[in-house]
Amino acid sequence: MDINEIYGYIREDMVQVEERLRLIRRVDFPHLVELLDCSLKGSGKMIRPALALLSGKFYEYNHDHLLAMATAVEVLHTATLVHDDAIDKSAVRRGRPTINEMWGAEEAVLLGDYLFATAGELTASTRNMRAIELFASTLKTISGGEIEQAFNSFNLNQERSQYFRRIAKKTASLFSMSTESGAALSQAPEESIQVLIEYGYNLGIAFQIVDDILDFVGTEEELGKPVGSDLAQGTLTLPALIVMERYPEDSPVKRFFADRGKKENIALAIEMVCSSPIIEESYQVASDYRDRACRNLGSLPDIVNRRLLLELADYVVRRNR
Amino acid sequence: MDINEIYGYIREDMVQVEERLRLIRRVDFPHLVELLDCSLKGSGKMIRPALALLSGKFYEYNHDHLLAMATAVEVLHTATLVHDDAIDKSAVRRGRPTINEMWGAEEAVLLGDYLFATAGELTASTRNMRAIELFASTLKTISGGEIEQAFNSFNLNQERSQYFRRIAKKTASLFSMSTESGAALSQAPEESIQVLIEYGYNLGIAFQIVDDILDFVGTEEELGKPVGSDLAQGTLTLPALIVMERYPEDSPVKRFFADRGKKENIALAIEMVCSSPIIEESYQVASDYRDRACRNLGSLPDIVNRRLLLELADYVVRRNR
Repeated sequence: MDINEIYGYIREDMVQVEERLRLIRRVDFPHLVELLDCSLKGSGKMIRPALALLSGKFYEYNHDHLLAMATAVEVLHTATLVHDDAIDKSAVRRGRPTINEMWGAEEAVLLGDYLFATAGELTASTRNMRAIELFASTLKTISGGEIEQAFNSFNLNQERSQYFRRIAKKTASLFSMSTESGAALSQAPEESIQVLIEYGYNLGIAFQIVDDILDFVGTEEELGKPVGSDLAQGTLTLPALIVMERYPEDSPVKRFFADRGKKENIALAIEMVCSSPIIEESYQVASDYRDRACRNLGSLPDIVNRRLLLELADYVVRRNR
Repeated sequence: MDINEIYGYIREDMVQVEERLRLIRRVDFPHLVELLDCSLKGSGKMIRPALALLSGKFYEYNHDHLLAMATAVEVLHTATLVHDDAIDKSAVRRGRPTINEMWGAEEAVLLGDYLFATAGELTASTRNMRAIELFASTLKTISGGEIEQAFNSFNLNQERSQYFRRIAKKTASLFSMSTESGAALSQAPEESIQVLIEYGYNLGIAFQIVDDILDFVGTEEELGKPVGSDLAQGTLTLPALIVMERYPEDSPVKRFFADRGKKENIALAIEMVCSSPIIEESYQVASDYRDRACRNLGSLPDIVNRRLLLELADYVVRRNR
């Protein structure tokens, strides 16, 4: 099933989320409008709002609150991207220049703060204490994870467990926040909320692994940013960790980390990964997490959303951008 | 009345706020502990928590929630300072190296995010919707104000109205959040909350004007950072605006903005301000705001807190650091 087909079922809601994203851009300071336009327009795959919406419709729900929450998770995600790009000095994202590239890191930091606040405001508007507490704790988890990642950049002494811990914090936490907050807003029984948390968490891990694979096998056009960005920033992802496991003595990864000036090693590392079973192995790990995500979905009410969550999980490991 | 005497009345509470600040630093990642220590240890004057505490004790209150809120406003303040320093590339704050100076701007951005989240978590723990909504809207106001300031740096075409608008956003909003959230947590009647909002807002303006004066007349030791930092960053504060009003044709301020390489003009501007009635005039404006802050306090219950708020307002325009 194609992503557009999945989204077809929630098209009206997604249009309303887009509309709410547009409303955020209506402020009385023209320069801020520009910054908001640049960061919120042409949003990405909108997976997080879709997760909140799909998770929030198994039981009784307040439509207005659910739309606010779906918008909040997308805005929170955007805020983290704006800060990430400033930190990584990335010039391109989704095929367009980043905020820091256009207006400098200073503006990117402040815009990210503004977007965090906006996401907080949207979350507060649901008046749901569980969603509100979850918002704060998730932002804490994400930034804590990013601090660990920054601290470990260009550090070769890392194992898979650290990688999984890191992506759990920086990606899975927001996926599970999306499903949990959606479910919590729909008066779902606690067991169903737990099933949806488990789904979101494991799907987030699978999603990030695939993201990390695509950073090796994708094209710049598909990715909307340069290939090999993770390695260039000194971040060891699953494919790079497998390289390190296979060739502990010497590898282009090791050589690049030892001398960051030798950028030719990035291309060599990409070639090594792509011409070996490392990609297949990484996809297998992602698929295992997809399976874990879905294993208990059967206990949710048998409505179309349940099938769409399964389809979405398949899409996550199958996508090429 | 000395600040310590004012704080004497709320000493036990302030000790508990300090204790809560210490608890934030207990995390399981040693590097994060270092970052939190560096940013939260040796906090400044702690005026914002004092405002929340004093405002929160006119009526019935939940002590635990009030302490959480007082801690939240200090953590939120610290988060904004950490980001400000990263943006301004400031090397010193409160006489100690900044996070960006010690570990780089990247870590400062992420630590600031982590602190925002922590402040949000503390606010959420009060389970008071007004405080929660206020938290999000205040962060939005502050970052919006900072974006305006960044956008207008080294812009000579600014008037007093823009200056007041800017400091209202970047400083007064957090002062009035402190008094409003304290009051809202104490079941205060709406009129009393409004009096305390008015107090906090105007006191915040007075406070920032004095801060901006001290940037000219203080010593590096008193300020804990270089004198003339605002001008050096291209920010026009009240004393500099008065210089521009007095000498529209030519002034060291104008010359420095025209050519940032000529740093000698910063010292000349400081000299010009300090050897003229500009300082006195600026203090007069600050005193007017102090008076506005206090004019309706008389309608609050006649308990010791009311006198302490008056004393605190006097301290704010009298302090030299």
